[in-house]
Amino acid sequence: MKTYVATPADINQKWYLVDADGKTIGEELERIGYAGPEDVGKRDIHAFFEVHIEQGPILEVEDQTIGVVTDAQGLRWFDLAVTGVESHAGPTPMIRRKDAMVGAARIVDMVNQVALDNAPLACSTVGSMSVFPNSRNVIPGRVDMSIDIRHPDLEILNTMEEAVREGIKNITDDLGLDAELDRIFCYDPIHFDESCVSAVREAAKDCGFSMRDIVSGAGHDACYISSMSPTSMIFVPCVDGISHNEVEDAKPEWITAGGDVLLRAILEKAGHVA
Amino acid sequence: MKTYVATPADINQKWYLVDADGKTIGEELERIGYAGPEDVGKRDIHAFFEVHIEQGPILEVEDQTIGVVTDAQGLRWFDLAVTGVESHAGPTPMIRRKDAMVGAARIVDMVNQVALDNAPLACSTVGSMSVFPNSRNVIPGRVDMSIDIRHPDLEILNTMEEAVREGIKNITDDLGLDAELDRIFCYDPIHFDESCVSAVREAAKDCGFSMRDIVSGAGHDACYISSMSPTSMIFVPCVDGISHNEVEDAKPEWITAGGDVLLRAILEKAGHVA
Repeated sequence: MKTYVATPADINQKWYLVDADGKTIGEELERIGYAGPEDVGKRDIHAFFEVHIEQGPILEVEDQTIGVVTDAQGLRWFDLAVTGVESHAGPTPMIRRKDAMVGAARIVDMVNQVALDNAPLACSTVGSMSVFPNSRNVIPGRVDMSIDIRHPDLEILNTMEEAVREGIKNITDDLGLDAELDRIFCYDPIHFDESCVSAVREAAKDCGFSMRDIVSGAGHDACYISSMSPTSMIFVPCVDGISHNEVEDAKPEWITAGGDVLLRAILEKAGHVA
Repeated sequence: MKTYVATPADINQKWYLVDADGKTIGEELERIGYAGPEDVGKRDIHAFFEVHIEQGPILEVEDQTIGVVTDAQGLRWFDLAVTGVESHAGPTPMIRRKDAMVGAARIVDMVNQVALDNAPLACSTVGSMSVFPNSRNVIPGRVDMSIDIRHPDLEILNTMEEAVREGIKNITDDLGLDAELDRIFCYDPIHFDESCVSAVREAAKDCGFSMRDIVSGAGHDACYISSMSPTSMIFVPCVDGISHNEVEDAKPEWITAGGDVLLRAILEKAGHVA
């Protein structure tokens, strides 16, 4: 099983990580003039605040201006290959099939159910799928798919991973299929610094903005910085919760509110607000 | 709904059918020198026999040398587009998702179940699927898929189509998804000519080969010719039921047996065997 787990200790090693084209992070930083002389993580940071659009629908739906980000979900990414036997869709009786597509489909539904079983904070997604040979006339012999599971509680995240592994085994055993599961990436849940979270909450209160505590579903710079210094985040709403998309949008008053809270939280943490 | 149903009456019209590159069948037949002066279907055929590998596993598994093909399955092909809302896999709560992948997965399992509910002769297959945007980090906004259903009894085939249509509606309604179903191709079941089927059965018996009646799951030349003249088919086993594949294989003795039965059936139908 290939597993890459990002921890603070291996940040320097990332300079040697190689991309699909054979380029390393270190060489590319040098090429663009960003490889400074200081070791990563050596610079002392008193506190770190990051403001971001929520990238989800909660604040807008609940008409709250500020999200006080208390935690970030932990994440596990998997690649799964489901293998059956490719054969002709007409003359192959149902009882003699080893249909990788049927197995993959049941796994999608099972992965979805694992998050529903751990509501309301759990998320799980099968975002990509490749079918082979991908012909309407041929029972698929192989399906490759991604699995993404997230939860802000490490213990529950571990339980979800176990449920997914057991579900895959049961489904593929039942259909006579093979499954190869690789955990390709993961990071643990993050609980942001209490004093920084408190500074954000107080700042929003002082500014008179409506607010609610919220958990970040996406990864952010703050998630990595939090291993080196006191950190928290400020979320503002975005239209329909959509991001990484041409229609991504946030009203100017939301952005202004986020900036106001950011400034006030920094001043408070720096000791400039009583 | 785009529907193309092949019938004997429109065979001549096929000359004007256009492929993806804009080429017509008629022009291409002329280009390669195959467009003869005689109208299609005008030539009188006394009887037609076709020998073919089974393309399925039944004869080999049951250790039968000859398949007496009594019928050919009717077929319906559909294109289905399932549409939801594309959004970020992390910050989008499960209860706010419109995940096209989950809908597509349940439809795959439902289509599979429709054939199991009409066992043993029904077949159904989702052979191809395309996911958009197909990123592990994004809840799929759209999934395109194929659906293939087959049965040798027209009434049951119609029942299967109804069950598939109802299943798609229920699943997508339940998940708040949209579905667009196009029936892109179909042909009705074929019952081969009794006297031709009988000639094959007698020929196999006279040759001393083991045999069983069988239904063709795939489409063949004989299926089209059967609308113009008395027709039947002879199947021989193939290794593991695999065809249209580099590993397609049939033992020489199977091929020889198929040839023997073909010759004897033709002679009988032509009145040269008592």
